[in-house]
Amino acid sequence: MNILLVCAHPESQSLNGALRDFTIRHLEQAGHTVRVSDLYAMQWKAQVDAGDSKQRLNPAYFDAPMESQHAYQNGLQSDDVALEQEKLLWADTVILQFPLWWYAMPAILKGWVDRVYAYGFAYGVGEHSDRHWGDRFGEGTLAGKRAMLVVTAGGWESHYSPRGVNGPIDDLLFPIHHGILYYPGFDVLPPFVVYRTGKMDEVRFAEIREALGRRLDALSTTAPIPFRKQNGGAYDIPQLTLRPDLAPEQSGFAVHLA
Amino acid sequence: MNILLVCAHPESQSLNGALRDFTIRHLEQAGHTVRVSDLYAMQWKAQVDAGDSKQRLNPAYFDAPMESQHAYQNGLQSDDVALEQEKLLWADTVILQFPLWWYAMPAILKGWVDRVYAYGFAYGVGEHSDRHWGDRFGEGTLAGKRAMLVVTAGGWESHYSPRGVNGPIDDLLFPIHHGILYYPGFDVLPPFVVYRTGKMDEVRFAEIREALGRRLDALSTTAPIPFRKQNGGAYDIPQLTLRPDLAPEQSGFAVHLA
Repeated sequence: MNILLVCAHPESQSLNGALRDFTIRHLEQAGHTVRVSDLYAMQWKAQVDAGDSKQRLNPAYFDAPMESQHAYQNGLQSDDVALEQEKLLWADTVILQFPLWWYAMPAILKGWVDRVYAYGFAYGVGEHSDRHWGDRFGEGTLAGKRAMLVVTAGGWESHYSPRGVNGPIDDLLFPIHHGILYYPGFDVLPPFVVYRTGKMDEVRFAEIREALGRRLDALSTTAPIPFRKQNGGAYDIPQLTLRPDLAPEQSGFAVHLA
Repeated sequence: MNILLVCAHPESQSLNGALRDFTIRHLEQAGHTVRVSDLYAMQWKAQVDAGDSKQRLNPAYFDAPMESQHAYQNGLQSDDVALEQEKLLWADTVILQFPLWWYAMPAILKGWVDRVYAYGFAYGVGEHSDRHWGDRFGEGTLAGKRAMLVVTAGGWESHYSPRGVNGPIDDLLFPIHHGILYYPGFDVLPPFVVYRTGKMDEVRFAEIREALGRRLDALSTTAPIPFRKQNGGAYDIPQLTLRPDLAPEQSGFAVHLA
């Protein structure tokens, strides 16, 4: 299948670089076609601004969503943005690989999301009515495709455990899994997380490669995280709160798992 | 007191720009001294890279934490990074104001965190031992200062409620509140959030200004979010999991509130 690997690390010879190279080689040896968006190598521009459009809708006032919609609909997006969208449409599976910095993506990758996720492409898609609140959270432009995070973290696994001081890794990644990947339609696979990156040696790296290889071999068969579809009846519209009889009395990120 | 306002919106005439101007005026009229880091106006560089240091520790391999430490300790940081650190040290209270994009900060603000939070300044501070895991989560360089988020969101308040489809706003902001602000020592005040920014009119904006003004008047008296100190005995070290007798049987972000 077609696989897009988006990676975001400033040092090509780093652990992240080695994971990137391993992933590409492993997938290609399995017969897949791989394209890579190596954001640092591409010198990806991180900030959303007027340069994202070749011709402004309103040169006097920069309304980011409206300019994004105008540029997307009229073929006026900057070439870098349009190319990434083309890669996303081409891909059957997308892998985002990054170091967790301050419990979130590096800025350069957040800027890939902010800029590539245009109005009309990743949001503002589909009917908005009393029964359907846009094609999102389970529907959308990227529905039918799969996505997976490959994340490295300096902290120990226990620091990210259910009672760890950093917060549980699943909750820290929920805004990406649910809010960035599930939103425009991806089926989201459980993440592959490497902890304690400062304590890496050849033995451990070999184990990590093997574990990652197994996850890459299972990209098309791994069960996705079972997020609830927004428009499937589970949520009251337009307030978009979970129906009272589902996960009754509960709240938080976990109620959005079926 | 001394207040630093960091804001991150690409259009100066936007709602965010109006909130920025209101905040500055309101605080100055109350006798405070205000400095502003308007990241788009400053053309802030978002990505961490070798340009953040005036003289590399290792020109052949870019290890971001090690280069950051070397530059910080030796006065070799790029001027823009050093200036923001000086502002943070000067401030009694820091306000981060931004639109919530894809359930997180805009890339330009994440890049302010990634770059300004140097090794030795915001992390890698203090003793690491079996009883003390660094000066962080309640201790650190910025201890004794206060911080507050002012966030705008396009979605409705109910979409961010405890059972709303986006996830609860407190959980979405936890990685910032706890992981970015509490980590280097800030006392973190409850956020000021403006929802449904697409439906703004003069009446609503007047109400929002009034509510924000009250929060600004109470910056020094509002009770901070009661996060637990990492080294205060609540966490087992080095695994950094919450002691079993605290919030027993519970897990998730909320267990880190005392």
